[in-house]
Amino acid sequence: MVQKEGTKEQLLRVSAELFRKKGYRATSMRDISRALGIKTSSIYYYINSKEDLLREISVKTMNMLIKAGEKVAFSPSPPEQKLKQLVISHVRLLCENLDLFTVTLHELTRTNASSFWKEIVGMRDRYETLVRGIIRNGKESGVFRNVSEKMAGFALLGMLNWIVRWYSPSGGKSIEDIARLWADIFLNGIKER
Amino acid sequence: MVQKEGTKEQLLRVSAELFRKKGYRATSMRDISRALGIKTSSIYYYINSKEDLLREISVKTMNMLIKAGEKVAFSPSPPEQKLKQLVISHVRLLCENLDLFTVTLHELTRTNASSFWKEIVGMRDRYETLVRGIIRNGKESGVFRNVSEKMAGFALLGMLNWIVRWYSPSGGKSIEDIARLWADIFLNGIKER
Repeated sequence: MVQKEGTKEQLLRVSAELFRKKGYRATSMRDISRALGIKTSSIYYYINSKEDLLREISVKTMNMLIKAGEKVAFSPSPPEQKLKQLVISHVRLLCENLDLFTVTLHELTRTNASSFWKEIVGMRDRYETLVRGIIRNGKESGVFRNVSEKMAGFALLGMLNWIVRWYSPSGGKSIEDIARLWADIFLNGIKER
Repeated sequence: MVQKEGTKEQLLRVSAELFRKKGYRATSMRDISRALGIKTSSIYYYINSKEDLLREISVKTMNMLIKAGEKVAFSPSPPEQKLKQLVISHVRLLCENLDLFTVTLHELTRTNASSFWKEIVGMRDRYETLVRGIIRNGKESGVFRNVSEKMAGFALLGMLNWIVRWYSPSGGKSIEDIARLWADIFLNGIKER
């Protein structure tokens, strides 16, 4: 069982790496099995189709964000502290799982994900709701200005998600430094003065 | 000549709409000619290949941003005013040319654009340099805090570019309102107090 879970995790990571490099459409199951050094037929022990792989990658990444987001949102910290923590965990998750999140953010289109699009949109909405909720809390307690939590939330998520477009582990900037600077910019941006 | 330019503009817009909806890879030249109501062979009067279409769309959008960015950067306004203007023109350009910019931001990958990747990266760098330059000016004149202009620039561009993921002309929020709120959040975020 441990073995099986380990292999599946490996399958998702190797697939994500290929999807990121070659594109989801251009990657074949044969490419994936070759990269894993196993027979293509063996992959079907773990998943049913290439679309199934894309689904598992998407669900995995969304679950990571939601889990981290809920931990922060449901903590007793003040809104400012929550938002800072959320930014830090979001940046860290994306940078530490760059292949997986790049696939979710770029290969997951309505066409590629037709059979599970609604499921993923539901998960995305859940995370957005957490983000907006923290901003609303801050407005209610008078720490944040009266900004639209929907528009401010989109601004924050865009800032954070864009990182998969340029971040490289060899780039010199620490994940922690980037996250702290951005939390600082966004918090100062919406704080009441 | 006017006729020819009009047709080419139409060709780019129709192609961008299809690339955005179906994906660049999945769209054929036949799909494009059918949408335009002309023979596929007639398209080759204007461009040489599907990749050529993607290149023209990308160059067109990058030129729009660079032109607007230079106008702002080389104006005599103070850095704060420049950054606000840049945010407003960036948001407006993306929202008013949603198909074209979505293609540049999502279909333009190293694989899809192999023959002209360097050209586009050069244009992207030129625009990023304008953005970072305005931030540096603001730091030098003491209006902005001592933030890394590279990291702050990425934060801003992420926030702005993400709009193609959620903006809909029928969504109720005016482009002007979104742009002003975001300029306000980002400027307050990096301003010296």
